[in-house]
Formats: sequence, C-alpha cells, structure tokens
Amino acid sequence: MKPKLSIVKIGGNVIENSSSLSQVLELFSKMENHTILVHGGGKKATELGNRLGIKAQMINGRRITDAASLDIAVMVYGGLVNKNIVAELQSIGTNAIGMSGADGNAIHAHKRPIKDIDFGFVGDVDSVHGENVSKLLIAGFTPIFCALTHDGKGQLFNTNADTIAAELAVGLSSNYETTLYYCFEKKGVLREVSDEDSVIEHINSESYKELLKNGVIADGMLPKMHNCFYALQNNVHQVCIGNESMLSNTSSKYTRLTL
Amino acid sequence: MKPKLSIVKIGGNVIENSSSLSQVLELFSKMENHTILVHGGGKKATELGNRLGIKAQMINGRRITDAASLDIAVMVYGGLVNKNIVAELQSIGTNAIGMSGADGNAIHAHKRPIKDIDFGFVGDVDSVHGENVSKLLIAGFTPIFCALTHDGKGQLFNTNADTIAAELAVGLSSNYETTLYYCFEKKGVLREVSDEDSVIEHINSESYKELLKNGVIADGMLPKMHNCFYALQNNVHQVCIGNESMLSNTSSKYTRLTL
Repeated sequence: MKPKLSIVKIGGNVIENSSSLSQVLELFSKMENHTILVHGGGKKATELGNRLGIKAQMINGRRITDAASLDIAVMVYGGLVNKNIVAELQSIGTNAIGMSGADGNAIHAHKRPIKDIDFGFVGDVDSVHGENVSKLLIAGFTPIFCALTHDGKGQLFNTNADTIAAELAVGLSSNYETTLYYCFEKKGVLREVSDEDSVIEHINSESYKELLKNGVIADGMLPKMHNCFYALQNNVHQVCIGNESMLSNTSSKYTRLTL
Repeated sequence: MKPKLSIVKIGGNVIENSSSLSQVLELFSKMENHTILVHGGGKKATELGNRLGIKAQMINGRRITDAASLDIAVMVYGGLVNKNIVAELQSIGTNAIGMSGADGNAIHAHKRPIKDIDFGFVGDVDSVHGENVSKLLIAGFTPIFCALTHDGKGQLFNTNADTIAAELAVGLSSNYETTLYYCFEKKGVLREVSDEDSVIEHINSESYKELLKNGVIADGMLPKMHNCFYALQNNVHQVCIGNESMLSNTSSKYTRLTL
C-alpha cells in the first residue's frame, strides 16, 4: 500500500489576512500523513509593484509577466510570503522547508508559447521531479511551494499556483496515495453562487459534464475544475475543494471530486 | 573517517556583478565532496529600500533592521538573490536547494540583546541543527543559504552572512571534516593593504596574535578573522580566505588558517 500524502493549496484571500493564514497553518500542521503546502501570493505582489511604480502589464485583459514583474514575484512569493509561512509553521512544530520549482529541481517548465499573446516569463509545466520532493518527505521535511518554476537553463517563471498543486499531486501519485485540497474562501463548489450552503458534496466525471452543460460551473471555477480532473485522470486519488475547515475532521461540508 | 564538506561564503561584491557571480558558481559547482553555499545580498537590499523610499536606519553609524528593512532583506536575500542562484546552479548540474535559517529549522537565533543600541530584527545565532542540513546533503542536495535566521517562534531575523557560514561550519563539524572558504574580492589577508600580492599564505593562532598586535589585521578584517578562529576553535578543519580562484585547484595564492 502506498503511503498517504495530502497536498494543500491555499489561495490569495487566505494569505492576505494574517489571522486566516494562522488558522489554516494551524489546521495544516495537525494533518496526518505526509503533507505539502502550495501558496500563491495574493495581492502582495501587486502592492509591491505599485509601490515601485511598476504597473502590471495587461494585453486583452490578460496579465503579462515582464522582467520587472518576475523579480517582484520572486521577491514576494519566493521570499516574503514563503519564508514567513515557513517560520510560522516551524513555530507550531512542522519542519517546513520553502521551495520554488528550481529548488531541488522540483518543477521544470518552459516559457508559454506565443500565440496571440506573449505572456512573458510565464511557465507551463513540463515535469515534476517527484523523486526529489519525495526525498524531502522521507527525510521528515514538509515542503512549502511558492508558484515559481524554472526551465533548467537558469530562467525562473511565474506559474499558476493551482496548476503547481495539481502537477505536484500528479508527479507524486506513482509513489503516494495523494489527496489534493484546494482551499479557498467558499465552502465548496456551489449549485447557486449566491447561496453559500448550496455546496455540491460530490462530483464525478459524469456529474461534472452535467454541471458544465447547465452552466453551474463557470468563470473562475472552470480552470480550477480543469486542474482537478486533470489530477484525477492522472492517478491522484481524490480532490477536495472548500474552505479551511475541510482540513480538519469536522463534519463541515465541502466538495469531493472523484473520477 | 568523516566525509568532507566545503562551505563557501560569497560576498556582496560577487553578487552585484552577474559575470563574477557566474564564474564563482561555475567553480563552486565543480568542487568535489559535499558543498554548501552561503551568500549575502550586497547592495541590492539597499537599492530596493531606496526605490521604496525606505531609508536605512542608522544609530551611531550602525545599521538598524526595522520591520520594513527586514521585509526587504527577506524579499531580496531569501527571494531574488537566493532563487536566482539556485536556478543558475541547477542549469550547470548542481542540485541546489535554497535555504534560510527557518527552512528545515536549520539555524536558531535570538534577537540581539539591547545594550546601547536596539538593532531591531537582527539575530544572534543560538544553534545550528546540523542533522537537518546533513539530511539534505545525504539526499544529494546542495544547500544554498541566505543570511536569515529564525527564533522558532515565527520571527525571522537578519544575520551576518560571515557568521552564518562560520556557525554552519561549526554545527556540521561533528559529522564532517569541514573546510570553510571566505570568498571575497582580494586574494587573501594582505600584509600591505595596498599591495594585492602581499598575501599571507598561512596564519595560525600564534601568528594571528602577532598580526593583531602589529595592526596588520584591522578594520573590516577583524570580525572576519574572529569568525575564522571561532570556527577553528570549534572543530572546523580549515578556513581559507581569498578570491574565487582558491575554489579551483589552480596554484593561485590565498590565505589558509589553522589553529
């Protein structure tokens, strides 16, 4: 039987509020089995950019990562956010180790190909070196990943944190029974966006198609659900979407996805 | 026989010049045995502070690390400088992993006690958890340390990079035959500051006292030499001071220190 691994992705809203962050880290530190945390950077990178007078470059409403924006991402995600999370987890007994995709050669990516838009230093993931991440887990460390990857030629990239979490889950599923948790501000996937209690408690491939057809899953949930089913189709055991309470063993509702 | 370990500290002048940095990293990546790199941040932190309108706080000519300066240090040392060094080393075949003292609970420190001056978030090292760093070495990783420590209660600190290198060397010397390299812009400890070729090739405890008495070692070299002999007195095998060429097996001069 494979050992169990939980990969928890926490979103920007959690990171921006230090008491929410502490609450999530507290729950995360109490989780059993091997664990990995993946975090984005929230609005902190935009804030630093504004203070430096560097405006986010946008083309057709899509954000571009130019060289100055990449430096900001590396400073904020890889430095400020990551190291403070690591220090806080250490204070509550979790032997955290901060990681980008370059550290331990964990996540290889290539620059997103230019079709209509040149996104700049945005990386699409090629591969996760699960054996290196696994060495850290076996040695008793808890890897804390920020949303940066590298191309193996010295170039860092900005990569979506949801994607990093899904790719790590896929990359480690040959050696671990992996559950992927997408932790965000809502209780789960909602049947009615305006009704916080309309959580859909279980979605499988079949009901997913229905929910897409009926437009229940739309907008920002689309790429998240795409990552979930990508993970499930590539040997990830289970995916859960909800707020931080799903990380504990309380009876709160959340959405559980299986094939 | 203990396995050999080389700990290389590179200074600010190296980091500020990308071609010097590449040259040092190239030599570092070719070193045999286990290796650890320790880096400062050079003027990049001051530059970012200036751009953000945050002036370095000084009292009696000593730099103070207030909360804003600490954030800058964490972003620049722990993020920008560290992750780019890691990515560059990965591109030349070294399986680098970026570390602060909080990562893997590697280096514990306490806030420097207030005597005449409150230095703010400056940490004096209590202990190195050598067993955690050793796990990384054994797993095949090359740790790349920035000059940050933590108190185990969630607080990060700014700590002098020379000190970090010496403390790591001491903390790992019970399990490794450790050589500590202080790599800077000069060829070594000079008998005449103005004569680059007046390198003192060997210093031991006795000649050190003489050099101190005669004022040959003064100013900025004093704390560096203090770190060197602190390391030697605590089981570090050997300390070397010089420019990057001492990292290769060429016959260039440098200063070798022993007890």
